[in-house]
Amino acid sequence: VHGEGRAKRAMIDLARRNVAALCGAKPDHVVFTSGATEAASTLLTPRYRMGRGPLVMSRLYVLASDHPCILRGGGFDAADVSVVGVDRDGIADLHQLKSVLDAHDKDRGLPLVACHMANNESGVIQPVGEIAAIVKKAGGLLVVDAVQAAGRLPIDINALGADFLILSSHKIGGPQGAGAIVVASDLVMPEPLIRGGGQEKGHRAGTENVPAIAGFGAATRVALENLAQIGKVQALRDRFEQMLRAHIEDVVIIAESAPRLANTTLFVIPGFKTETAQIAFDLAGIALSAGSACSSGKVGDSHVLAAMGYSQAGSALRLSIGRSTGERELEAFAQALTSIAERRRNGSRAA
Amino acid sequence: VHGEGRAKRAMIDLARRNVAALCGAKPDHVVFTSGATEAASTLLTPRYRMGRGPLVMSRLYVLASDHPCILRGGGFDAADVSVVGVDRDGIADLHQLKSVLDAHDKDRGLPLVACHMANNESGVIQPVGEIAAIVKKAGGLLVVDAVQAAGRLPIDINALGADFLILSSHKIGGPQGAGAIVVASDLVMPEPLIRGGGQEKGHRAGTENVPAIAGFGAATRVALENLAQIGKVQALRDRFEQMLRAHIEDVVIIAESAPRLANTTLFVIPGFKTETAQIAFDLAGIALSAGSACSSGKVGDSHVLAAMGYSQAGSALRLSIGRSTGERELEAFAQALTSIAERRRNGSRAA
Repeated sequence: VHGEGRAKRAMIDLARRNVAALCGAKPDHVVFTSGATEAASTLLTPRYRMGRGPLVMSRLYVLASDHPCILRGGGFDAADVSVVGVDRDGIADLHQLKSVLDAHDKDRGLPLVACHMANNESGVIQPVGEIAAIVKKAGGLLVVDAVQAAGRLPIDINALGADFLILSSHKIGGPQGAGAIVVASDLVMPEPLIRGGGQEKGHRAGTENVPAIAGFGAATRVALENLAQIGKVQALRDRFEQMLRAHIEDVVIIAESAPRLANTTLFVIPGFKTETAQIAFDLAGIALSAGSACSSGKVGDSHVLAAMGYSQAGSALRLSIGRSTGERELEAFAQALTSIAERRRNGSRAA
Repeated sequence: VHGEGRAKRAMIDLARRNVAALCGAKPDHVVFTSGATEAASTLLTPRYRMGRGPLVMSRLYVLASDHPCILRGGGFDAADVSVVGVDRDGIADLHQLKSVLDAHDKDRGLPLVACHMANNESGVIQPVGEIAAIVKKAGGLLVVDAVQAAGRLPIDINALGADFLILSSHKIGGPQGAGAIVVASDLVMPEPLIRGGGQEKGHRAGTENVPAIAGFGAATRVALENLAQIGKVQALRDRFEQMLRAHIEDVVIIAESAPRLANTTLFVIPGFKTETAQIAFDLAGIALSAGSACSSGKVGDSHVLAAMGYSQAGSALRLSIGRSTGERELEAFAQALTSIAERRRNGSRAA
């Protein structure tokens, strides 16, 4: 291997150690992908291998509030995907999970369960340890989408009891174009989705996106630093929420009293159009996502709110506090809220 | 959609127009992926759709000298992949292709053929127009891996008669992390490999890698400029080859008289270790790939040379001329060749 190749290899190896350190895994147990969606599509397949032999996962169980890349079920036929509900606070219905896994027909194959650690719209934190215990008892495998949790919650793949974690670079401030599958043990692995050369030990072919992977590795260091600062983020988020309640008396802060990520607020302004609210914030210079940002350009009803039992009669907007969020954004937020409150008082409501 | 989202959308749209322009396609007919290997894994699947209905491709036909991401057959079982041979010059055996397609059993589904436009190791250019005519006559679909051809040969998807093209950003000087599927018509499309949000009209989910896609688009402009300069590249390549012949009398320049890309020379130094030769070039400051560079870190025998009937008893090295290649590299090349010639004279041969 020539000099350039060696340098690239060293950068990828460093990133692998950094990503492993973020979630208590071994560097050898990190497989880089082009992003979390590819990682999910790779893991959500009926075709696994245990050692050298095939292992069939005959049914996929997901949460109703999972990210679309989980909900779509990857390589499973729609008929082989079961959706487990969540309560009004967005927490997985563990009784339902237990009962559907009890009813799983092991003659066809094992159950594969996928859930998020923290929700991308509401910030709600799932009881992953309890979910893992139920899955283990049922003899299944557990895929945990830790994309939103990274840098906001401590992650330890073994303490969680997860078999696989999904991570994304750009969701923790790294560049777009990198993600990872982190495995508890490489004895059990999905059949590769992208085939070709022998990169990533054959688990993911294709020339490595070295700059994105290196940036991802660096971002995991920042994510660990952010974790130490999470108290400050929460204090700032609380100020945003106080401001929301002060300007919009009937605002609904979703899962207000449930375990939530410190940086996220999902709120609904009753009887007010999402697009109109979003434009008001945009004019004030701050970008708020309408429900989910995952399929940019489409403002649709939120499946997460629907799963939690909300009929979305109003604007659902998501506020995410980042490292650069501060007083300027608080002021811009207040300005936009004043303008929205005024429009609502003037009767220009539109549902 | 907020302001940042609109700006990203505009960047992606511009890149889409640029990539389309590179190969005579409509911008709507470009689907961005994380790279060429993902594009290949997406296209090489038995599961297509024609309009709203399923279309089954029951067997895949590839060339023996195709890139590993084609040879591995994507989502096809190994038993459903047929390999068509190439001659001593690396050109597809059209008689064999015709006869295996004549024997294709259409009751199970249609034939899918995949081939490269130009070879990544030897630079050999395939007669894609003739291949397309044979595939059309057999009622099949043709996937053309145009990764190496881009920026080195004019590409027109319709003139070629290809149904799908595969392109890579970093192979034309753009950033890693982007590639594309270009389609002649979006009536017939593969089932998506990566599922989730509605990005790329549902053909490829996952947050778009905007910097990589934007860079890919910019690189296609450079690729078109490079095409205009290809005569200079060829003249420089000829000087490298003259130098090779002058220093290493028994050097074998692969497919010397076949249609080849202007920037590529694959050569074999008989009875000399690839690694030893590579180190000599590396010490002189120029990076030469050993056979294929696709699975970095592994120096193995070249399947391309094997397909062409060479038993590789010596070092196979690939020289690629880029925009920055010039007199300095010619001098370094001469220096390395002198050192290799001396080692061979001193009897330090190792096969």
